[in-house]
Amino acid sequence: MPRYRLLLEYNGRPYLGWQRQESGATVQQAVEEALHAMLGGPERAPMPEIFAAGRTDAGVHARGQVVHVDLEKDFPPERLLTGLNFHLRPQPIAVLAISYAAPDFNARLDATARHYIYRILNRHPPPGMDAGFVWHVPVPLDAGAMQSAARHLVGHFDFSSFRAAECQAKSPMRTLSHLAVRRVGQEIHVEAQARSFLHHQVRTMVGTLKLVGEGKWSEADVIRARDACDRRAAGPTAPADGLCLTRVDY
Amino acid sequence: MPRYRLLLEYNGRPYLGWQRQESGATVQQAVEEALHAMLGGPERAPMPEIFAAGRTDAGVHARGQVVHVDLEKDFPPERLLTGLNFHLRPQPIAVLAISYAAPDFNARLDATARHYIYRILNRHPPPGMDAGFVWHVPVPLDAGAMQSAARHLVGHFDFSSFRAAECQAKSPMRTLSHLAVRRVGQEIHVEAQARSFLHHQVRTMVGTLKLVGEGKWSEADVIRARDACDRRAAGPTAPADGLCLTRVDY
Repeated sequence: MPRYRLLLEYNGRPYLGWQRQESGATVQQAVEEALHAMLGGPERAPMPEIFAAGRTDAGVHARGQVVHVDLEKDFPPERLLTGLNFHLRPQPIAVLAISYAAPDFNARLDATARHYIYRILNRHPPPGMDAGFVWHVPVPLDAGAMQSAARHLVGHFDFSSFRAAECQAKSPMRTLSHLAVRRVGQEIHVEAQARSFLHHQVRTMVGTLKLVGEGKWSEADVIRARDACDRRAAGPTAPADGLCLTRVDY
Repeated sequence: MPRYRLLLEYNGRPYLGWQRQESGATVQQAVEEALHAMLGGPERAPMPEIFAAGRTDAGVHARGQVVHVDLEKDFPPERLLTGLNFHLRPQPIAVLAISYAAPDFNARLDATARHYIYRILNRHPPPGMDAGFVWHVPVPLDAGAMQSAARHLVGHFDFSSFRAAECQAKSPMRTLSHLAVRRVGQEIHVEAQARSFLHHQVRTMVGTLKLVGEGKWSEADVIRARDACDRRAAGPTAPADGLCLTRVDY
């Protein structure tokens, strides 16, 4: 019963998120069903269960999601890759790489860093080609001010102010190792990196930095929000569209 | 009756192309209906007619389409821009800029250059996030060989070999001013520029260069295809997905 490590890319738009749900299609379900088809379907094998580094929310994208799975059959990785991509068609999910993993490899628990990028389209007209992949903010944002404020969120803190009410993590303590804001043409990109994040942490940090970008908040307001350890003290949660899990390190 | 010049961006995926058709939704129709709504609808004004620099095919995208239109009412350009984007929602079409145009400005006839980019995703796994915006070519392509061959298509030629059967242009003579192939990570980008193109010309040139990239054709084969002045002599037409009209010059 070999364990595999898979690297996945997907457009999160048509899905209710990563995790299986009764109410509709999820990325986990789509990949598990493709694996199940490879194994010969319900008559041959139980549904395999995959474990992901990042349980992305509805509408959140991935270019570098990592998962592990145990299969009842030993497929050469290259054949598994081709077969899975065949069975996933025409869904916007691609398996980019597959390798054998150590029997105790855990995609979620062993991750040493998760990397996200958040794209803001900062122009008056709404997105045409990039609808669903960016957050449209029509008022001009000061990326330099956002970058200065972002520095105050880098480090080891109680991130309760940036945590969704439904977050299931035992502790609100997290170490944010990198948070950078830069303008790229008409877009502003926010890069975030941490060993792990609280639920909605990146999106709430982006929603807070946006207040700084439009001049409504100062750096001191961000420090105050951080130190309040209260979700009501920070800015609104930015929409899912702009968020993408780009890489996971082990 | 002022004449306006509009700059448009759109995701071509959900449309049957630019030009109005009985059989389904087109970009022209969507923009004309948004203009019509601004004018007060059928009881107040006839449907306005817009004229575009590039009549993009089904599935072809645009980041810099230019059109002109005459309106029965004089709107300040800024108000027209905001109103049109409001009425276009939630379609993946955005009006990026609007200005008054000279009464004899013609978006189609006055264009001095049209710029296209064609994106090939050149890796074994299919596209996940970029499905619909790239041509997936799983076999490794030699971008350098494609670039060398592309040089033989730059200039003033009879492009009959790269022209769709349904092309309505009077002459097959065109001047291709620029054709560049370069690798960008896992993608290969083909940039093409000309005063005007024949129907399917960019896609047929890309389909032909792909044969060079995979080693099936030599540079001499491309020259032979060009000089044959016969559509059957060139390679297949690349799919619409990867093509985007990026800019029009006047």
